[in-house]
Amino acid sequence: MKIDGHPYRTIWLDGDAASVNVIDQTQLPHRFAIRRLRGLDDAVEAIGGMTVRGAPLIGATAAYGLALAMHENPSSAHLDHACARLAATRPTAINLRWALTRLSARIAAAPEQDRRALAYLLAADLCDEDVAINRAIGQAGAAVIAEAWQRLGRARPVQVLTHCNAGWLATVDWGTALAPVYRAHDDGIPVHVFVDETRPRNQGASLTAWELGSHGVPYTLIVDNAGGHLMQQGEVDLCIVGTDRVTADAAVCNKIGTYLKALAARDTGVPFYVGLPSPTIDWATPTGDRVPIEDRGAREVTHLAGWDEQGRITEIRIAPEGTAARNPGFDVTPARLITGFFTERGHIPATPEALAATFGKHRAP
Amino acid sequence: MKIDGHPYRTIWLDGDAASVNVIDQTQLPHRFAIRRLRGLDDAVEAIGGMTVRGAPLIGATAAYGLALAMHENPSSAHLDHACARLAATRPTAINLRWALTRLSARIAAAPEQDRRALAYLLAADLCDEDVAINRAIGQAGAAVIAEAWQRLGRARPVQVLTHCNAGWLATVDWGTALAPVYRAHDDGIPVHVFVDETRPRNQGASLTAWELGSHGVPYTLIVDNAGGHLMQQGEVDLCIVGTDRVTADAAVCNKIGTYLKALAARDTGVPFYVGLPSPTIDWATPTGDRVPIEDRGAREVTHLAGWDEQGRITEIRIAPEGTAARNPGFDVTPARLITGFFTERGHIPATPEALAATFGKHRAP
Repeated sequence: MKIDGHPYRTIWLDGDAASVNVIDQTQLPHRFAIRRLRGLDDAVEAIGGMTVRGAPLIGATAAYGLALAMHENPSSAHLDHACARLAATRPTAINLRWALTRLSARIAAAPEQDRRALAYLLAADLCDEDVAINRAIGQAGAAVIAEAWQRLGRARPVQVLTHCNAGWLATVDWGTALAPVYRAHDDGIPVHVFVDETRPRNQGASLTAWELGSHGVPYTLIVDNAGGHLMQQGEVDLCIVGTDRVTADAAVCNKIGTYLKALAARDTGVPFYVGLPSPTIDWATPTGDRVPIEDRGAREVTHLAGWDEQGRITEIRIAPEGTAARNPGFDVTPARLITGFFTERGHIPATPEALAATFGKHRAP
Repeated sequence: MKIDGHPYRTIWLDGDAASVNVIDQTQLPHRFAIRRLRGLDDAVEAIGGMTVRGAPLIGATAAYGLALAMHENPSSAHLDHACARLAATRPTAINLRWALTRLSARIAAAPEQDRRALAYLLAADLCDEDVAINRAIGQAGAAVIAEAWQRLGRARPVQVLTHCNAGWLATVDWGTALAPVYRAHDDGIPVHVFVDETRPRNQGASLTAWELGSHGVPYTLIVDNAGGHLMQQGEVDLCIVGTDRVTADAAVCNKIGTYLKALAARDTGVPFYVGLPSPTIDWATPTGDRVPIEDRGAREVTHLAGWDEQGRITEIRIAPEGTAARNPGFDVTPARLITGFFTERGHIPATPEALAATFGKHRAP
């Protein structure tokens, strides 16, 4: 997608053909900065410290993390070490494990002297595949947005509500939840997005607002509390969110608060869609309640960073000193609350049967 | 309730028997400051600028606003002027209109020379009545908390989730939603409160956290997104919230986001209660969807204040510059999602019939 008219991806191989560049998402929206990853340590830190975030981009960064590790040392011991360290960075992201399992098996099967080149090639392929998947998700979802526009008699823009950031910054390009929005917008269908700020890390206020604005899509920021009321008032035509993991029963694990929006959508008759790339399906976990939920610590709740009046990035404390806080990072929305999945194979119902029929339960890693 | 062991009310007549003292709630939890209101202008500004907030306390401050106005000038013209200015401060709060209607009629009926003394007397009575009502709400709700404790086999504290601040800071004393918590705590029943931070103004993180901590009630702060997940996990035994206005159909207008928590409570089988003092019932509005919802402006969404590292109160911007935001202050939760009302006449079902039978539809102002 575009920043000031220039197309970007979120991750790309540097001109030195060894290190890897990523957009530093901890600096957005205050500063657009590129960070260079020179080795495994940098990749581990980039994922764990949320320089990169979003399930698909975490998978892509892990893939390049293996390449950087093979650049350092192509031994099997170092490959195992790299897999273990990268896997431990974010327990909820299923794409991470998917990318590591898929790539490490192929790298391990190659002779040591070929592993470096193969690992970079596989990482680049995985990135291109992510872009292709998301482009297809965009087409599936844009068709639904176009239908909504017809239904509205083309009288006003289609109003989409989204939670967190499942835009192009969460992927290599296009995004999952926002791919349909970009596709519709680029096709000339007027779309306006209500952006949940998405406490505690405010990825909506910082990343989604920034990327929609940079590409030229109209949006309005709201607090996480406001979406139910807007749906009651008929101001939301459809919700689209991303997902960190979809279990075999079609339950959607996504950023904390997604479940509340899905409940409001159901109660008010607003369709609720999930942008779902197939690598995010976790066939090994039968039901959503078995997904381990990351607890991210109290400080994200009690402290917040932003720009002060002098334009400096400043952290403030918003609760009484010593306040205890709980900070679950994700919640699980049951399939019964979801209208459908936008996937790279089109728009499908949110049922275990449709998932299995479309993607096959025994997909090779 | 107590601050550092000393009992306080939120509003009281000064030793000079003319001006009125209030706790400046815009400074909490960072600073405990008392603000003196010396005339009508101060009372209008205290309500409009949210030095005081919470439906019952707004009503009490409006009552003292009339007294301050009569202290300035006991003419009927000034009384009308005071009513009009005070009524315009907060459109959603029903107690404000209730207090103004009730008191101004009695003041207007008195001879001019008696109006000053009468107005102060009526304001003091209204405050005492608020305390008595809230104490009774506390008893009704504490019985339900005590039952929950028995049901849990006294094995762990009863877990209550609350939204915004409907504690003693929102009233003259005791609170509405939190009165049952204080009553249960003071009676030796172990209670722990999950406090929604309550964006955009964070009254949970600032006021509820502060007042629970000051009185010694254990609490844990959570973001507004987290409550649904905690209910799914069985970590919440009951929800109790306050209300700014209950319409004749038993719909509850309360701080934005209340509706989302009520939906989650219904979906997970958690009882959802509302602390309801009868002055908050709006008999004149037949249904919840007719309540005017205050839109409080973008800045509360895009900017946030707190303490920086040096201990200074600092405001930061958390969204890209120029971000458009919508900021509805309240939402309406339909009666079907509410388990019951805790009122000064006990615990009653959330139905129009129970409301009318308990409080009578034609209560004199």
